[in-house]
Amino acid sequence: MGENFPLLEKIIQKETLYNGSYLDLKKYQVELPDGRLADREIVRAPDAVAILPVKSNGDVVLVRQHRPAIDRTILEIPAGLVQKGEELESAVIRECEEETGYKPKCVQKFLTYAHAVGYSTGYVTLFLSDDLEHTGQVNRDSTEFLEIVHMQFSELQKLVEANKIVDSKTILSTLLYTKMREE
Amino acid sequence: MGENFPLLEKIIQKETLYNGSYLDLKKYQVELPDGRLADREIVRAPDAVAILPVKSNGDVVLVRQHRPAIDRTILEIPAGLVQKGEELESAVIRECEEETGYKPKCVQKFLTYAHAVGYSTGYVTLFLSDDLEHTGQVNRDSTEFLEIVHMQFSELQKLVEANKIVDSKTILSTLLYTKMREE
Repeated sequence: MGENFPLLEKIIQKETLYNGSYLDLKKYQVELPDGRLADREIVRAPDAVAILPVKSNGDVVLVRQHRPAIDRTILEIPAGLVQKGEELESAVIRECEEETGYKPKCVQKFLTYAHAVGYSTGYVTLFLSDDLEHTGQVNRDSTEFLEIVHMQFSELQKLVEANKIVDSKTILSTLLYTKMREE
Repeated sequence: MGENFPLLEKIIQKETLYNGSYLDLKKYQVELPDGRLADREIVRAPDAVAILPVKSNGDVVLVRQHRPAIDRTILEIPAGLVQKGEELESAVIRECEEETGYKPKCVQKFLTYAHAVGYSTGYVTLFLSDDLEHTGQVNRDSTEFLEIVHMQFSELQKLVEANKIVDSKTILSTLLYTKMREE
């Protein structure tokens, strides 16, 4: 506990409000640092992986897809959910090939982040690969419609700077790769 | 529609699964590009604002708080929800002062991002302020316990590089401010 103790919201009880196929909604009863009780609505979302795939000519491989949550068709880096028992590296190699037909021969981890600390349990781990093999083995979920987009990394940087990219994992990996190339 | 049409998941119907005090859970029925129907579980989360406050001595003002969703006590930049009808700039100035006692005299927008495009409606807009007034007018929610942490920006950069910071808005604003200072 140590330094955390004065801030700790101790979880007393978890109640399931909704059990979904993709996510669960729970109500946590927490004990506040002053002893009072409070409720927190928490979404249990699956952990995800995402990757910035860079081809030998410097192009990045992105996907364009429609996202009903924000009702927009957006550009993103390839991403997907980690299956039970699966290593993050295996998951991201699998997802990249399934979505784009490009299989990373090796991957490098950027970082792990929590996408919505206020209410979601979900973490996303971001990777980079600049060593891709084109297998063409696309294998998407039956309800997954997406378009592959190749562009120079400098073009992606411009889209991020102009805030034309709204997806957090795509913005983050663009900034991280920019920084890596400058070092 | 235009270029989006081949990818569009048209929202046919929205059903409320749970109406919470902080967030709502809905089921969207969508029509896929091939005409089939599919369900999507969507969280309606409030939009938020966050700010990197930089003092004249170069220190940043952060908050440490416990987050039951990930059951960790973490460092974050000040942030909060946008109230109905409130401008983003006003919201972020209010939240920064309420949480830290430092009131931004002017703010600069970094960017807006969607924090979980797979299932959440929520957007976060990130700001910077390097012009702060110390008013000491802290005014937190009654169930909000947090500790103010001052540190040199270079120390925050090191924490982000070591992936000791897991909060997406804090990582993003650190990378964006790093980039801005280099330009």
